[in-house]
Amino acid sequence: MLRARGGWRALRRCASLPRARRAVRLRVREALGAPEPADEVQVQGWVRSVRSQKEVLFLHINDGSSLENLQVVADPSLENRDLTFGSAVEVQGKLVKSPHKMQNMELKAETIRVVGPCDIWSFPLKMKKRHPLEYVRQFPHLRCRNNTLGSLLRIRSEATAAIHSFFQDNGYVHIHTPIITSNDCEGAGDLFQIETSNKARESAEKTHFFNVPAFLTVSGQLHLEVMSGAFTHVFTFGPTFRAENSQSRRHLAEFYMVEAELSFTESLQDIMQVMEDLFKTATSTVLSKCPRDVELFHKYMAPAQKVINVTEKSCNCVAAVDLLVPGIGELCGGSLREERLPFLKSRLQRLGLADAYQWYLDLRKFGSVPHGGFGMGFERYLQYILGVDNIKDVIPFPRFSHSCLL
Amino acid sequence: MLRARGGWRALRRCASLPRARRAVRLRVREALGAPEPADEVQVQGWVRSVRSQKEVLFLHINDGSSLENLQVVADPSLENRDLTFGSAVEVQGKLVKSPHKMQNMELKAETIRVVGPCDIWSFPLKMKKRHPLEYVRQFPHLRCRNNTLGSLLRIRSEATAAIHSFFQDNGYVHIHTPIITSNDCEGAGDLFQIETSNKARESAEKTHFFNVPAFLTVSGQLHLEVMSGAFTHVFTFGPTFRAENSQSRRHLAEFYMVEAELSFTESLQDIMQVMEDLFKTATSTVLSKCPRDVELFHKYMAPAQKVINVTEKSCNCVAAVDLLVPGIGELCGGSLREERLPFLKSRLQRLGLADAYQWYLDLRKFGSVPHGGFGMGFERYLQYILGVDNIKDVIPFPRFSHSCLL
Repeated sequence: MLRARGGWRALRRCASLPRARRAVRLRVREALGAPEPADEVQVQGWVRSVRSQKEVLFLHINDGSSLENLQVVADPSLENRDLTFGSAVEVQGKLVKSPHKMQNMELKAETIRVVGPCDIWSFPLKMKKRHPLEYVRQFPHLRCRNNTLGSLLRIRSEATAAIHSFFQDNGYVHIHTPIITSNDCEGAGDLFQIETSNKARESAEKTHFFNVPAFLTVSGQLHLEVMSGAFTHVFTFGPTFRAENSQSRRHLAEFYMVEAELSFTESLQDIMQVMEDLFKTATSTVLSKCPRDVELFHKYMAPAQKVINVTEKSCNCVAAVDLLVPGIGELCGGSLREERLPFLKSRLQRLGLADAYQWYLDLRKFGSVPHGGFGMGFERYLQYILGVDNIKDVIPFPRFSHSCLL
Repeated sequence: MLRARGGWRALRRCASLPRARRAVRLRVREALGAPEPADEVQVQGWVRSVRSQKEVLFLHINDGSSLENLQVVADPSLENRDLTFGSAVEVQGKLVKSPHKMQNMELKAETIRVVGPCDIWSFPLKMKKRHPLEYVRQFPHLRCRNNTLGSLLRIRSEATAAIHSFFQDNGYVHIHTPIITSNDCEGAGDLFQIETSNKARESAEKTHFFNVPAFLTVSGQLHLEVMSGAFTHVFTFGPTFRAENSQSRRHLAEFYMVEAELSFTESLQDIMQVMEDLFKTATSTVLSKCPRDVELFHKYMAPAQKVINVTEKSCNCVAAVDLLVPGIGELCGGSLREERLPFLKSRLQRLGLADAYQWYLDLRKFGSVPHGGFGMGFERYLQYILGVDNIKDVIPFPRFSHSCLL
């Protein structure tokens, strides 16, 4: 319904008429890092500032490829009413060495086309204003155009890639553990349950879509244990859920967990080593891939916090470990699992779960091995390395008690 | 509850006593690919076959790092009752050049320890038997120990990594679009709705956890459109849901979608180019990273299907495109979106949705740009490149009507 455009317009575009001039299209990041000047360059993006002087017009253009803007220098005759903060533009011209120390290149505009104007009076972001995170949080559809959230989401993206690479490089198989699960043994009070939206029919027929009650996952651990019995080293990185009735700065109803499981592991030290290597590798990748974005946070967000190597390990000697960090709490939790069939069986029998978890017992019946694993809260990880106080500010679309915007 | 082991045992392990001998631990894949012989090697894994001759005992060991097994050659005196198909073992010995053409290295065992025996009478997988996919599908907790599913999940993992790399390498920002959403405009009949498991209280108080009805996402498109207004090029790769009442070989209730959105895009050609590049890059990465795993499928699954370049593009000239493939149907769907405020507004008003989607209109009010994107069904992609008939066989834990095992 919201997809296709009208026919005549699409046809015009489908025809892909040759443009009058063939300029090289560059992202802002590429233009800023260009090794040498170039003629016939085209840059597209959103205007972050307009400064009109008598003899020259300055624009700053951002396209989300970096925190830094590209400075555009133009003749004042190119100014027009729609060329405002927030408008989308396409600038064509020459890329030249900038006379300013702070930037490598700037764009001498020959043409400036306003692709989409911006109604600045109702636009909640204002030019050259440092909006607090609490303020931009009110506009979930626009806050990504704010510098801080822009940097945050670029960092989140790089950290995601770094985590995938870390595990792949170390021989782990990635598993999409299920989101919908019939397991309800862990923390049953805080689960989300799933029904089809056609609930009337389901309750009239007293049926469930899946035949059994189904829930949103709280952890991929049990499913990873299944897979660690075939691949030895496995990991998952996906959404997990808690129906926790809290609007605190620490809680989300939907958040991301990195979880790993290792077979033939008899010592917590092995698990802790992976946790530490993951943390260090992801963090150093982020620092090297987006230094300016990280700098923004360390300058404005976390003046007092020392990042990295401020970690407390608490080994409680029942073969479980938590990694606690100041201001955030538990960042990682790991443990060795019970691999011995008789012990696990008697425990599940006492809890009346032996039938429901026969499959889990089966894993111990057919080539069981000592194994263990851990989970790391991805949002807490980002909060920690960047010094962000509220967990709602490190996820693109926060979901929490009483709030599911967009 | 299922996590911590008893204290004394864990303590023993925490102490991490030095082993009698320090052998180099190798994965099967590493052992098979070792450039030269080595003494003092340790390999852990599961027994795939046992063949006992008068003067020699042969084992095949697999640890999930590759489809190929490592051959272990041992003195028959090392045999024991628990050393069966499916048991977990730790073998120590010398890695030597194999006299067989088909393998590079084999392991001359000095010690064999059965870490976990396997109850072969009740174990549903049998030695040297090629089980049909329909058969192993009955055992979702054990089927990953089957060759075909093992190869499938390694390929799935490599394809996942390749898709992330493709987008990262091309300047896309990865966005975790939300799983829980309050949007219900698309295909409302097939949505899953979410409640807390404490439904009694909610219905007594006539409230929702999120204040509004909440659903499992059917697509990240609208949220990517938000983000493409800041980062220009964005992508997501996550679970999507349909409450479709079907047990056919084509449908899952939970499946994965790769979705991308591109700003400043005026032509469907641009979208189609990205679709094609994604497909080619992911597929060639898979082919080069796990040739043996792919070979297994092409040998046994898809004898008649020509993979890659068998694709039909259907451009219906209303600025939407579907990529249809034989036997599977729609693999990708893409379109240009309506970026013009007045057109979109009047359409939403006619549908009575203008208030609910004010945020979506806002995107067109503040620096709107022509944009478009596409989605690719990840399971269908895997089915297509591997020639797998049933979608339930290309996902670790299939969820569909009447079935949510584990």
